[in-house]
Amino acid sequence: MLTREQLNILCDIAGLDHVLTQKSDRICYSYDATQQQFLPDVVVHPGTATEISRILQFANQNHIPVLPRGAGTGFTGGSLPILGGIVLGLSRLDRILEIDEENLVAIIEPGVVTADFQKAVEKVGLFYPPDPASLKVSTMGGNVAECAGGPRCVKYGVTKDYIVGLELVTPTGDIIRTGGETMKGVVGYDLTKLICGSEGTLGVVTKIIAKLLPKPEAKKTMLVLFDSIDGAANAVSAIIRNKIIPTTLEFMDARTLECLRRSTELDVPNSANAALIIEVDGDIEFLDKQAEIISESIKALGIVDIRIASTDVESEKLWEMRRAVTGALRQVRPQIYNEDICVPRSKVPDMIRKIDSIAQRYGIPIVNFGHAGDGNIHVCIMVDISIPGEKESAEEVVKEVFSETLKLNGTMSGEHGVGITKAPFISMELEGNTVDYMKTIKKALDPNNILNPGKMFPSDVNS
Amino acid sequence: MLTREQLNILCDIAGLDHVLTQKSDRICYSYDATQQQFLPDVVVHPGTATEISRILQFANQNHIPVLPRGAGTGFTGGSLPILGGIVLGLSRLDRILEIDEENLVAIIEPGVVTADFQKAVEKVGLFYPPDPASLKVSTMGGNVAECAGGPRCVKYGVTKDYIVGLELVTPTGDIIRTGGETMKGVVGYDLTKLICGSEGTLGVVTKIIAKLLPKPEAKKTMLVLFDSIDGAANAVSAIIRNKIIPTTLEFMDARTLECLRRSTELDVPNSANAALIIEVDGDIEFLDKQAEIISESIKALGIVDIRIASTDVESEKLWEMRRAVTGALRQVRPQIYNEDICVPRSKVPDMIRKIDSIAQRYGIPIVNFGHAGDGNIHVCIMVDISIPGEKESAEEVVKEVFSETLKLNGTMSGEHGVGITKAPFISMELEGNTVDYMKTIKKALDPNNILNPGKMFPSDVNS
Repeated sequence: MLTREQLNILCDIAGLDHVLTQKSDRICYSYDATQQQFLPDVVVHPGTATEISRILQFANQNHIPVLPRGAGTGFTGGSLPILGGIVLGLSRLDRILEIDEENLVAIIEPGVVTADFQKAVEKVGLFYPPDPASLKVSTMGGNVAECAGGPRCVKYGVTKDYIVGLELVTPTGDIIRTGGETMKGVVGYDLTKLICGSEGTLGVVTKIIAKLLPKPEAKKTMLVLFDSIDGAANAVSAIIRNKIIPTTLEFMDARTLECLRRSTELDVPNSANAALIIEVDGDIEFLDKQAEIISESIKALGIVDIRIASTDVESEKLWEMRRAVTGALRQVRPQIYNEDICVPRSKVPDMIRKIDSIAQRYGIPIVNFGHAGDGNIHVCIMVDISIPGEKESAEEVVKEVFSETLKLNGTMSGEHGVGITKAPFISMELEGNTVDYMKTIKKALDPNNILNPGKMFPSDVNS
Repeated sequence: MLTREQLNILCDIAGLDHVLTQKSDRICYSYDATQQQFLPDVVVHPGTATEISRILQFANQNHIPVLPRGAGTGFTGGSLPILGGIVLGLSRLDRILEIDEENLVAIIEPGVVTADFQKAVEKVGLFYPPDPASLKVSTMGGNVAECAGGPRCVKYGVTKDYIVGLELVTPTGDIIRTGGETMKGVVGYDLTKLICGSEGTLGVVTKIIAKLLPKPEAKKTMLVLFDSIDGAANAVSAIIRNKIIPTTLEFMDARTLECLRRSTELDVPNSANAALIIEVDGDIEFLDKQAEIISESIKALGIVDIRIASTDVESEKLWEMRRAVTGALRQVRPQIYNEDICVPRSKVPDMIRKIDSIAQRYGIPIVNFGHAGDGNIHVCIMVDISIPGEKESAEEVVKEVFSETLKLNGTMSGEHGVGITKAPFISMELEGNTVDYMKTIKKALDPNNILNPGKMFPSDVNS
């Protein structure tokens, strides 16, 4: 607990209206998508980088943890105040400061909602590709902290590929600038990319310089239902072999389709055991040619049905199947452990088979869907924790899924990060020396372990 | 100087044949493209990461600087042994270990020559885009250390955009692995991108995992001569406004064309004051359409001549003009200070005007060419150091060019790095706090300052 005097200092820095101490207020900042809950001692909503700098200096002097927080949509607990302390809400820093149409860059504050940013740049014919599922709620600061991905990343890359500069308050309260507005720059270390995906442990982002693209003229969406997961996986390979990198290559496995059949009115043929949503974008004339090449290259791969959208409305209809997944799953089991492993693209069918076998062995249903184009599978382990022993079994399942992922040269997380949920497993993926190199950086930059302590690295490592 | 006993230890580690102590041998490792020279005490050519690890441990125990070296083609002295010590030649680590056609990744060693790597992947229909001018000589390890660029980067990005994993010997001799073979991965800090462009100060790269693309089907090259630099700059904007990001957008300014007129037989009309080489690649049918859109969008911008290649041979002919530049410049003045500033794309004409005015004021000819698409200008300050006072004037010119670059929100280096030549100027671009953040990382990871000491940061900062 902070003393009255300490709270007064925070009020002096951020203003009385921006310091929340009531329990009812603090509860709103105690959870995220992990459904875990930790109550912060105080929530502060600073208005400037200078205020954040002063808060961090104060926190260092008093050894109080500081937890930067965007919209709290993370799946791994990156914003949870597991040790209490100060939640630093960044929602007041929500301005789009500049969209430079000539140089295709934008300068924004971290509290800008991702979808709002996308809409703003699209209004002037530009394009910010990363599209995490949470984009209507999540903020750009959170996206940078976690290096958010999304379906379009197979063609366009992830958040860090679009971040070229940052303003950052360091863990000890310095305000620094990294990168800049130029498309190239090699003066000093690339701190920008180091910060992207560092999960709020190395600094508080207060300004973001993002690279933009011209908005593609049009898109074309296809939904293809296959009789086997191998058919879908081979389709992915065949498309890329034909020199097409689609905007999205989303897949759903047999169990996902089964859930959709059971819980929705959608037309999912019984013989379909896998689905791909393939979207291409670009020049309008060229799209038809691409669609033809795709249809031709996958036709021998056990197609049950192929549906091609000609209009935006039809495209939205095809996407309904993918969007209905989360809702459909919730009807099967009350809790879902949502993992986001990533394997080399060609290993997706092997991985699905391994997961099926784990699911069978433990008697816990697991459905798989996600981004086949980059091998990023959302493994949904469906749990009912009211069944005795099921929670423990599910935890074993997670561990086995990670273990099989790593055997296939994969990673435990393609998008969601480590946070607290994957921290206990980090040493399965990273060797001790590699973790030590990271820890050395963290310790040097945050000697008092103030910023997001206990996250990413196992707690013994981080203390 | 190393003692006989110390040299024996190195021979024990790397083998007698791989330790060079003769002055005649050491001279070969004493210089790079800066034309500066510093003699190392010894040159070692290790054969494995384990040997490198042992050498670094030995160097830490004995406080001997270690300078990893690729092909020595750098422009900023990144591989120069300015304090003597051990040059670590990486040429024996020259294997292409794997090209995974299914997953579009390759695993290579740092001593592989960039062009050889490109040829190897192109043989199987794949594509590694970064194309520094030195690619026929420079090695992938050096490209990673400096984050090499090249003409194609405007469309495809720079070296770090293609490096997804590394094996690295840390400054203290640990062997670590960063990233991996997956296209996404957010477990721990992104050490891979931190190492790219860190100029050999944070570790010795011993293995590289590179992302590949499908090789574009064809390309189309256009050479456009304009009556003014504004015409060329507006053309760049117009092309991008038409949603085309060409593979290359190389420009040459009036003074560059003047040099070509004087020193070559090439057909450079007198009324041409700027040139653009525009290349697009991709689907063969689509290229004609793109060329049409480009021609149409730039036709009102003061075109003196437009030449379009239909075959590879014709394309090579158009590129001759760009390739002849370096040779032509050498005929004008004996020394060239080759800077590589980068400004926001739209600021290129402003920058060229500023440079012209500096050149006039000091009476030193400066020619500008480079990558207009990303605002990366190769500023060639042409010096004859036999003229009394000219060296000093040229140094003032460099400083003024940097100063004007920074006023336009640019950077001192888009491709070449800091090394020793730009280290004295780093505080013009980076604020003290930012340099401190970088220094903190360097100091934590290399407490004895063994790896490439005195590079990047001003010497007082690095000691």
